[in-house]
Amino acid sequence: MERPRHQGMAKNTYMRWRLPLICLLWEVAMIVLFGVFVRFGPEADAHWEEEKRELNLTSDMENDFYFRYPSFQDVHVMIFVGFGFLMTFLKRYGFGAVGFNFLLAAFGIQWALLMQGWFHSFKNGKILIGVENLINADFCVGSVCIAFGAILGKTSPIQLLVMTLFQVTLFSVNEYILLNLLHVKDAGGSMTIHTFGAYFGLTVTRILYRPNLEQSKDKQGSVYHSDLFAMIGTLYLWMYWPSFNSAISEHGDAQHRSAINTYCSLAACVLTTMAFSSMLQKKGKLDMVHIQNATLAGGVAVGTSAEMMLTPYGSLIVGSISGIVSTVGYVYFTPFLESRLHIQDTCGIHNLHAMPGLIGGIVGAITAAAATEDVYGKEGFIKAFDFTGVYQTRTPSVQGGFQAAGIVVSLLMAFVGGAIVGGILKLPIWGDAASENCFEDEVYWEVPEDEESDVYHMHNPDKPASP
Amino acid sequence: MERPRHQGMAKNTYMRWRLPLICLLWEVAMIVLFGVFVRFGPEADAHWEEEKRELNLTSDMENDFYFRYPSFQDVHVMIFVGFGFLMTFLKRYGFGAVGFNFLLAAFGIQWALLMQGWFHSFKNGKILIGVENLINADFCVGSVCIAFGAILGKTSPIQLLVMTLFQVTLFSVNEYILLNLLHVKDAGGSMTIHTFGAYFGLTVTRILYRPNLEQSKDKQGSVYHSDLFAMIGTLYLWMYWPSFNSAISEHGDAQHRSAINTYCSLAACVLTTMAFSSMLQKKGKLDMVHIQNATLAGGVAVGTSAEMMLTPYGSLIVGSISGIVSTVGYVYFTPFLESRLHIQDTCGIHNLHAMPGLIGGIVGAITAAAATEDVYGKEGFIKAFDFTGVYQTRTPSVQGGFQAAGIVVSLLMAFVGGAIVGGILKLPIWGDAASENCFEDEVYWEVPEDEESDVYHMHNPDKPASP
Amino acid sequence: MERPRHQGMAKNTYMRWRLPLICLLWEVAMIVLFGVFVRFGPEADAHWEEEKRELNLTSDMENDFYFRYPSFQDVHVMIFVGFGFLMTFLKRYGFGAVGFNFLLAAFGIQWALLMQGWFHSFKNGKILIGVENLINADFCVGSVCIAFGAILGKTSPIQLLVMTLFQVTLFSVNEYILLNLLHVKDAGGSMTIHTFGAYFGLTVTRILYRPNLEQSKDKQGSVYHSDLFAMIGTLYLWMYWPSFNSAISEHGDAQHRSAINTYCSLAACVLTTMAFSSMLQKKGKLDMVHIQNATLAGGVAVGTSAEMMLTPYGSLIVGSISGIVSTVGYVYFTPFLESRLHIQDTCGIHNLHAMPGLIGGIVGAITAAAATEDVYGKEGFIKAFDFTGVYQTRTPSVQGGFQAAGIVVSLLMAFVGGAIVGGILKLPIWGDAASENCFEDEVYWEVPEDEESDVYHMHNPDKPASP
Repeated sequence: MERPRHQGMAKNTYMRWRLPLICLLWEVAMIVLFGVFVRFGPEADAHWEEEKRELNLTSDMENDFYFRYPSFQDVHVMIFVGFGFLMTFLKRYGFGAVGFNFLLAAFGIQWALLMQGWFHSFKNGKILIGVENLINADFCVGSVCIAFGAILGKTSPIQLLVMTLFQVTLFSVNEYILLNLLHVKDAGGSMTIHTFGAYFGLTVTRILYRPNLEQSKDKQGSVYHSDLFAMIGTLYLWMYWPSFNSAISEHGDAQHRSAINTYCSLAACVLTTMAFSSMLQKKGKLDMVHIQNATLAGGVAVGTSAEMMLTPYGSLIVGSISGIVSTVGYVYFTPFLESRLHIQDTCGIHNLHAMPGLIGGIVGAITAAAATEDVYGKEGFIKAFDFTGVYQTRTPSVQGGFQAAGIVVSLLMAFVGGAIVGGILKLPIWGDAASENCFEDEVYWEVPEDEESDVYHMHNPDKPASP
Repeated sequence: MERPRHQGMAKNTYMRWRLPLICLLWEVAMIVLFGVFVRFGPEADAHWEEEKRELNLTSDMENDFYFRYPSFQDVHVMIFVGFGFLMTFLKRYGFGAVGFNFLLAAFGIQWALLMQGWFHSFKNGKILIGVENLINADFCVGSVCIAFGAILGKTSPIQLLVMTLFQVTLFSVNEYILLNLLHVKDAGGSMTIHTFGAYFGLTVTRILYRPNLEQSKDKQGSVYHSDLFAMIGTLYLWMYWPSFNSAISEHGDAQHRSAINTYCSLAACVLTTMAFSSMLQKKGKLDMVHIQNATLAGGVAVGTSAEMMLTPYGSLIVGSISGIVSTVGYVYFTPFLESRLHIQDTCGIHNLHAMPGLIGGIVGAITAAAATEDVYGKEGFIKAFDFTGVYQTRTPSVQGGFQAAGIVVSLLMAFVGGAIVGGILKLPIWGDAASENCFEDEVYWEVPEDEESDVYHMHNPDKPASP
Repeated sequence: MERPRHQGMAKNTYMRWRLPLICLLWEVAMIVLFGVFVRFGPEADAHWEEEKRELNLTSDMENDFYFRYPSFQDVHVMIFVGFGFLMTFLKRYGFGAVGFNFLLAAFGIQWALLMQGWFHSFKNGKILIGVENLINADFCVGSVCIAFGAILGKTSPIQLLVMTLFQVTLFSVNEYILLNLLHVKDAGGSMTIHTFGAYFGLTVTRILYRPNLEQSKDKQGSVYHSDLFAMIGTLYLWMYWPSFNSAISEHGDAQHRSAINTYCSLAACVLTTMAFSSMLQKKGKLDMVHIQNATLAGGVAVGTSAEMMLTPYGSLIVGSISGIVSTVGYVYFTPFLESRLHIQDTCGIHNLHAMPGLIGGIVGAITAAAATEDVYGKEGFIKAFDFTGVYQTRTPSVQGGFQAAGIVVSLLMAFVGGAIVGGILKLPIWGDAASENCFEDEVYWEVPEDEESDVYHMHNPDKPASP
């Protein structure tokens, strides 16, 4: 930290050699590993013409690129603009919110391409990638962005990079267990992305508990324009969530259905969020924190079931409930978590991702257990749950059981992994700031000396003027 | 209102029970109605594999999802970010602009899925929905967002929800009359969305006329950064308008043509708007109000004709004219409407939607009347105007006449409907603010106590400091 | 200029008749030329049904619209929101950044449709346009937006329109030489868009050198929120760059491959940019200028080679290097260019576009020269480099030589063209502002009198209060 107010609490936040070193080291590692392992998949390789002939495809349109690329771009926007700007609500941490999210996501997608590649796209010693891998890498990083929300403003960029490395690894293992070993369906990632990411982040922030965080309380709020910047993030997440939940579903009806279910769930969620935001406040006014966050819970909560025959009214019900749960969470649970459990959750990811993620997992399990050949059609039933090969004889109720097991596994991975990674991040070598300097861009960023800040200082005579 | 300056004018803006009640009531109604009526259409249903076989489709690519989903997402962005941020130009009404737009649109799309579903997608007692229904629901809500522009800052969220309920209903009736009874073409909605939505909103704001609105005049302007936020809205509307006008056109050439015509019209519109913005101001400077709004008139004005053989140069002409008309409107008509006709049009929707909408309807009628088999080709001619079944013998000039009739019907529906709904909204039970507190987020929102507002108060000693 | 501080330096920035005149004149010219020349291409024309039959196409999906429209929209966002908002970083030039970018791009795309149409889509006396033409027009205008970055804040809107007219013309000639005469591949435009655009702009700004520009030094910086607005531009450019580089590649594997390569390159670029941003600053803090700009160099640097078999690890290497080069450029080259070569480069386009563009050209030449039938497959090899017709016998190494020649031609066109156009813009008739009034929106825009500006004046007692 540059200018400590209380000498005794000064911490070394000097990044000059540590941050470059870790960035360059990891990028070199990525280049080497990509060089050894990563190649274009058959649909992105110049041999595509031959591939087409072999597969008897008559049109370039059958290339997976055209089925998924528009959804990929929407997901991409969600990760970088959606999560990035959603977290700019803090008055003096906009650079950190957008900038560190950018950094960790850019690193994370490279490492995720490798990790997920080894598990899912490994053929003859090479990872063969295509547009679906890009989407999955973005998804994986999404879980890191979620965890970042819990520790926003309290960690150094190095800590974030270290966390990303471990979390992407654990995510991929968890995902492998769920999708391949348990044969669980989770296209929108209620369990793999949201439940895992949120409880992982909450465990990390618990381990990194700062007893004196109220010293930076004046910076934990928003200002008028920072709330509007955050709404950019909110709206892009909200609008593109149908793409998120449908991006890696099966071609055809499954993608179509996922988008519709998510659209319905999110629409309902907005109304119940507004209702409870007003209801739970004495003056009856709406709170931007709820509008920015709880309106998105509906997308999380249909993540598992969106591609199933949840039906539009089912989606409305799930969306309505998750909006209520999430808003109530902001009003009652977040203060409770902080005061009683020492979980300091900057963005309230417990309300936006953890609880709705659990709801999503449960709804998915129920929807799967309730599936019938009548509702899905004979072929549709097999296709929807991939009841082929060794899973040919699995029944819906068994599938529901495995779905529920997926929730438990995700929670366990999150708690154990979060505890270990939290412990690593607690080492005093990563350059995090003192509690009094949390939520302040000046620690890691060149911040322009602007009029606003003049005014700020003018009205806060206690604070020393910037040099 | 919380802290009335003049006791005599105090109004009860307390939302705590009214807003939650109406939100929850309506969401429950939606759930019940969706439960009874709404199901997945064949392309989103798990029976799709069987459907494909029946229709002899060889590829999942033939699912309508892949023809329309990218356009749908663009339209979705226009409704929520485009309209939402376009209205953030007011210095102290950014939360209301983005937040209330979010609320009314989220409710409106649910109700629109039902209303439009009953009229257009009703089969065997069920509404079968697919991606085209989502687009149409967004379109319908677009007309409400337009009307919201006229009353921006002057109504309570409850009034907006009530207006949405009625306007969506009337929109759907009007759309049914035009598309099904008159067999009118209006893919980009010059008549159904813009003309109807704008004149509806103008009628409502006329009924809700506030004689003392100059009391909040200091808040009717923009600040530097709020103008930049508004430009986010402007640009997304401008960029994605080709998707708007082509989203529900026929597959193939019609979608392609609509996008090109709209692209051309909008490009031309920017130049004439800039020209007249500078020309009509003594100092010759450009006015952000015109750039934010009139540049979009070109998209409105080709809404009906974009899918027809308007030709690129035709589009340039229409775009040029609409930019001029719209800019002139902002300079001369808006003040006139307010002072003489008592129409207080906050965002100037008369200039951006009403007049360009009328131009769009007229251009559509002319373009239809001028159609020949030579220009369209025999098949193309029939396909473009759907001259099949009972319309097999309709001639272009007759079609032009019906198109013109569509304008008249839309105007009538807007005036009559707006008057009735305006009357309902005038009831003193909806919690709207006193005129002196219009355009102020503090009435319905928790607003952060920030530096800017400190400054604001400092420079406005008359205003009591916030508690 | 309205209120000159020093009478002697006053310049006439009055736009009232000049700007409208040039806008209207040019729009009329566009209408006439479009009327004479521009028609719908076969895939956007109502005769499409007959076309389909002739080409034996079984599905509307085969219409190029569905292959390219999603990418087109992404590119469209990059040009208008990406470039527009990237340049809003200046504290008092946000209107000019977004607004003038809007103006010049809207004019430029019309003129580009004509210029590129005459060269590439001219059949039987008509230019036949489709979605690919729209993309190419956006690309062409992209090079003008780049050049605008060098002269940002120092020119009048009229100068920008004049520059656009000439630059689009020269761009189209250069593009024709490269693509048609040299048979060079450059789908992402490292040479045609970035190298040409950047060196053109740098030459223009050299000619327009302002020795007294330090008089407006206080306005050349950013403020906190303007840096966040700029990040909107950065992220949209970064996220959609895969669409940029793949938008006009061949259907199928080439589009797919371009997107993957660009995704990888950009991810790597972020890490090396962050590393060097911290390393090159004494305090080790990150600089928003680098994050906003250098993170994008990776997209520029794979512009030529992205559709080739660059491979993912090759992309990581190129991205890493370009991030380093670009960041080093901001720290060392930009000050050097200004002090020694009198090149005042407002946005640092030399670092973001010029050097990475050259890298892109060189990488493209090497990748082409290294191509083998083994790597591409027999058919893929011919398809990738279009070695058909008169080019049937061209070898990869010869292709590499022609690629290198393309760089040289682009540089020559940029220097010569830029010098001529710079000379024209130096004429004292275009209404540019005095050096002391550069980077100030008030010169050409109605600027709201807001609190911030009150404060600003308060803290700058030298500056006369606004009327």
